[in-house]
Amino acid sequence: MLVLVTYDVNTETAQGKRRLRNVAKACTKYGQRVQQSVFECEITSSQKLELIHELLEIIDSEKDSIRFYNLGSKYSTKVSHYGRQTHHPLDEVLII
Amino acid sequence: MLVLVTYDVNTETAQGKRRLRNVAKACTKYGQRVQQSVFECEITSSQKLELIHELLEIIDSEKDSIRFYNLGSKYSTKVSHYGRQTHHPLDEVLII
Repeated sequence: MLVLVTYDVNTETAQGKRRLRNVAKACTKYGQRVQQSVFECEITSSQKLELIHELLEIIDSEKDSIRFYNLGSKYSTKVSHYGRQTHHPLDEVLII
Repeated sequence: MLVLVTYDVNTETAQGKRRLRNVAKACTKYGQRVQQSVFECEITSSQKLELIHELLEIIDSEKDSIRFYNLGSKYSTKVSHYGRQTHHPLDEVLII
């Protein structure tokens, strides 16, 4: 299934900047960066739980937030992109 | 239906910073900000087209990008949030 991961990490401190890098690094193992703080991950439910666990180890829950959106397995018509392309598009995604 | 809007706006210039403000302002008319560059919009298909049109008038397609994700009308189990709360949660969203 496609899981969208979006995050806000407070980067006012050096620790925050490190958390941001580590969140992105962790997400990269599970999927593809499509925008600055947005990853698309084609993963199983158990991989999703692993990712959640890994990210919760990284973030400061008082300062940062992470959202997960399940888009299911048939997602090509659910996703549309406009403007600058910053990644290799998923093969079926509708690019306008 | 719930439409997720995520965007990256290049803010290296004053114009970019203005585009960012205007994108957020436009999205606010259609939905709720849940993270820095992420809005959740409970809208109809025609409202979505309106929003797309409005945003394409604002962004610089060479420098900025916008992605739309359709989550359908039954989305409460599709969305999960961890960490800092920055908005009034949609009544059914699962907060962990």
